[in-house]
Amino acid sequence: MKVRVIVTLKPGVLDPQGKAVHHALTGLGFAGVNDVRIGKLVELEVDEGVEDGAIEEMARRLLANTVIENFRIERS
Amino acid sequence: MKVRVIVTLKPGVLDPQGKAVHHALTGLGFAGVNDVRIGKLVELEVDEGVEDGAIEEMARRLLANTVIENFRIERS
Repeated sequence: MKVRVIVTLKPGVLDPQGKAVHHALTGLGFAGVNDVRIGKLVELEVDEGVEDGAIEEMARRLLANTVIENFRIERS
Repeated sequence: MKVRVIVTLKPGVLDPQGKAVHHALTGLGFAGVNDVRIGKLVELEVDEGVEDGAIEEMARRLLANTVIENFRIERS
């Protein structure tokens, strides 16, 4: 079973990578982009018995830095 | 309007970062994880008039390396 953990910077945390991408898009002539934020996607292939609680624990302990990042879990 | 571009490695492309995370999860005692792949998430805040074709062009030219990566576009 596939589980996706999406890790994004908390609002207000500076995102220089996003700023660089935004700048590059503007430089390439793409208009209408107002902001860019970069996040991480962790795709886990897990056994059926693994519950959301365990995935959340993985995210808290390893996948996300909860001081500056939020995460959410999506099952597909 | 928010648009997400999700960039993932193509199947068969080695993912050392995913391997490292998998190894670390196992080391922390998490069982039942069979594979881990890491991808990127680009969240764009765009004007209403920006169409999927333009987003796809941004992904092809800048956000993804289409030799080794796939991307998909999700509107929220």
